[in-house]
Amino acid sequence: MAMRVLGIDCGSVKTGYGVIDSDGRRHSIVTAGTIETTTSFPMSARLVQIAVGIREVIALHQPMEAGVEDVFHSVNAKSAIKLSQVRGAVLLVLAEAGLECGEYSPLSVKQSVVGHGRAEKEQVQFMVRSLLGAETPTHLPDACDALAVAICHATRAVRAA
Amino acid sequence: MAMRVLGIDCGSVKTGYGVIDSDGRRHSIVTAGTIETTTSFPMSARLVQIAVGIREVIALHQPMEAGVEDVFHSVNAKSAIKLSQVRGAVLLVLAEAGLECGEYSPLSVKQSVVGHGRAEKEQVQFMVRSLLGAETPTHLPDACDALAVAICHATRAVRAA
Repeated sequence: MAMRVLGIDCGSVKTGYGVIDSDGRRHSIVTAGTIETTTSFPMSARLVQIAVGIREVIALHQPMEAGVEDVFHSVNAKSAIKLSQVRGAVLLVLAEAGLECGEYSPLSVKQSVVGHGRAEKEQVQFMVRSLLGAETPTHLPDACDALAVAICHATRAVRAA
Repeated sequence: MAMRVLGIDCGSVKTGYGVIDSDGRRHSIVTAGTIETTTSFPMSARLVQIAVGIREVIALHQPMEAGVEDVFHSVNAKSAIKLSQVRGAVLLVLAEAGLECGEYSPLSVKQSVVGHGRAEKEQVQFMVRSLLGAETPTHLPDACDALAVAICHATRAVRAA
């Protein structure tokens, strides 16, 4: 059965989003883009910008489930703290929208999309484009990362069902 | 002029809250308590529990401003990530409720309440109680910490105005 999945790539400056339709094996792109925050704003106002953007995507495209990447422990402490704040706000928005949300390590995302966990960023983008076709916004790396998370969720959610 | 301030002490298990009325020098307690999350729930559901709890406190007690503690960089990476997720959700809830939110280091909170930044947790609780009186819920350390953040915000916000 086809499922519409929202993937999110959290970032305090740019948060990527990507929506796909998928039966777990074949995927088609619905929309993808980035939500940019105003870096001169305090964090709380930037979190509102991200929340508003995600709610808009959900309202427009009605995904049924969602996937978000885990915060990578080995990024430096300050970035991890910023990123985690964004992630907390995003998880809250998704849960309050009633979306089941899978959480995936960068390794699992790469494994799902490329077939192994040691893939480079460019390889992931290349594979996302070959899976989703020419509409993939390869010029928006955060949107591509979000699509990769959506593919990861779709592949696993259907396999688990 | 008196101001009603909400202080929050973020935590993924227990989030403390405290509301005070303050003219910047004298403070009185309005309410304080803790929001407990269900530790068996996934993080997103726990963030919803915290968000619902904070919105309830805001609706009931109508604070005008808020204060939240910074995440301490030196706690271990895993705790910092969890705590930051809670903090992100809390900042979003406060901003969407229209509350200006001050962010304070643990050092500034201690300085505001005890007079120096090296104070022990017990000393902070003792001072919160002497400033706010017998209604202070000293049996709820997270609520006391939240009241300390509220005092810190009130002291600084009025001085800055």
